[in-house]
Amino acid sequence: MGILNAGIIVIGDEILSGRTKDTNSHFIAKKLIESGIQLEEIRVIQDKKELIIKSVLEFHKNFTYVFTTGGIGPTHDDITSESIAEAFNQEYCFHEEAYKILEEYYPKGKFNEGRKKMAKMPKNVKLILNPLSAAPGFIINNIYVLPGVPDIMEKMFSSILHIIKKGSPKKTLTLNTNLFESTIAQGLEKIQLKFSECSIGSYPFYNYISKTGGVNIVISSWSIKNLDHIVKEIQEMIALLGGKSSIV
Amino acid sequence: MGILNAGIIVIGDEILSGRTKDTNSHFIAKKLIESGIQLEEIRVIQDKKELIIKSVLEFHKNFTYVFTTGGIGPTHDDITSESIAEAFNQEYCFHEEAYKILEEYYPKGKFNEGRKKMAKMPKNVKLILNPLSAAPGFIINNIYVLPGVPDIMEKMFSSILHIIKKGSPKKTLTLNTNLFESTIAQGLEKIQLKFSECSIGSYPFYNYISKTGGVNIVISSWSIKNLDHIVKEIQEMIALLGGKSSIV
Repeated sequence: MGILNAGIIVIGDEILSGRTKDTNSHFIAKKLIESGIQLEEIRVIQDKKELIIKSVLEFHKNFTYVFTTGGIGPTHDDITSESIAEAFNQEYCFHEEAYKILEEYYPKGKFNEGRKKMAKMPKNVKLILNPLSAAPGFIINNIYVLPGVPDIMEKMFSSILHIIKKGSPKKTLTLNTNLFESTIAQGLEKIQLKFSECSIGSYPFYNYISKTGGVNIVISSWSIKNLDHIVKEIQEMIALLGGKSSIV
Repeated sequence: MGILNAGIIVIGDEILSGRTKDTNSHFIAKKLIESGIQLEEIRVIQDKKELIIKSVLEFHKNFTYVFTTGGIGPTHDDITSESIAEAFNQEYCFHEEAYKILEEYYPKGKFNEGRKKMAKMPKNVKLILNPLSAAPGFIINNIYVLPGVPDIMEKMFSSILHIIKKGSPKKTLTLNTNLFESTIAQGLEKIQLKFSECSIGSYPFYNYISKTGGVNIVISSWSIKNLDHIVKEIQEMIALLGGKSSIV
């Protein structure tokens, strides 16, 4: 079985203008790796139809799962659903079930045009229910269309995780050392070359006030079940260089 | 004069795996809008040469300024400089000035292979000096290559802002209302259609515990210097619907 992979498309001028911090993609990233799904790209784009269509089609082709966040609300700048309908040459129309859900949710006489818009979707999609504010997301092909408001997005994303196929979680170990990154670089490269089925990442940290620092070495693999021998080899290399190390 | 625009390429498996939160692009986004530069895309990609080359060339063509973060350290997984050299068919070799800076920075006998690697860059680039940990970034064409460690990146990015051409800052006003987004959606759309040179964004908030919420309406424009008449029209629309509004 090949690796299950994924991409996230964040749709929203508010992220690009620095007005809002995107917390959604970090949330999804953590959930995906726990689920054995490799996140390969995050793309933050403007609320523009041609850009949404282009990214959605590219991601649709490249990834097992595509998650979009943002742009499915009631206002004129919410154009995700309409754009995705166009991307897949689907009619953009009222989804019967979504319409009913929203009609029931709002008080009588308050189900206005803006609210009705949230029931418009590409034809024949499957809904992603929204337990907080009713307006559903939807699934079309391998695209999972979610809102941008973090607490709603998180609840809806978690419900998706129950229904999609997951992989074996990536095995990951983190080793901490007091040596500088540049001291261990060569040794680390040799070990990486030897174990091509694992990925060895090196993340330095440094405190400019206390003048202390070191490196977190992250050893991870989708296929190797036990990383102990690789970790041992890295620890021996560090000890030979006079450094200390410990598994975090 | 056309609008100055920009894209950010975040290079790093550690963001995609959810291990690290990307704070760099939010920092850059805020600085760019203050500088009259429109950020149009953020892309987080894996540490893979072919992906770096593809994104760099695409962004090079599409944007006035391209900022990359990450992947210029001393270890084997730092392949940004080498990839960018290849993207522009430039030799990847020691930069004389960068080499000197690093040689002077490290204690005698401690300027090892990993550290030397940080002086390797595409031929003929201009350096971006690093006031914290010496290892410089560089500029090639319209690409500004920065490290991933936030405090270092931020200092180096701020130095770039002194030398690049800036635009007129985007004029922005935020209006807060107690009405729901779906209540004001239609009125807002009419006003948006009337003033095509400004962008009206609508960002709902809702507290599920206090059951109170509303919308932040962000009115912004690169060309209109005074947004007061647009804001007034939105406030009148809200008042007609029985709502309250105030400028934030």
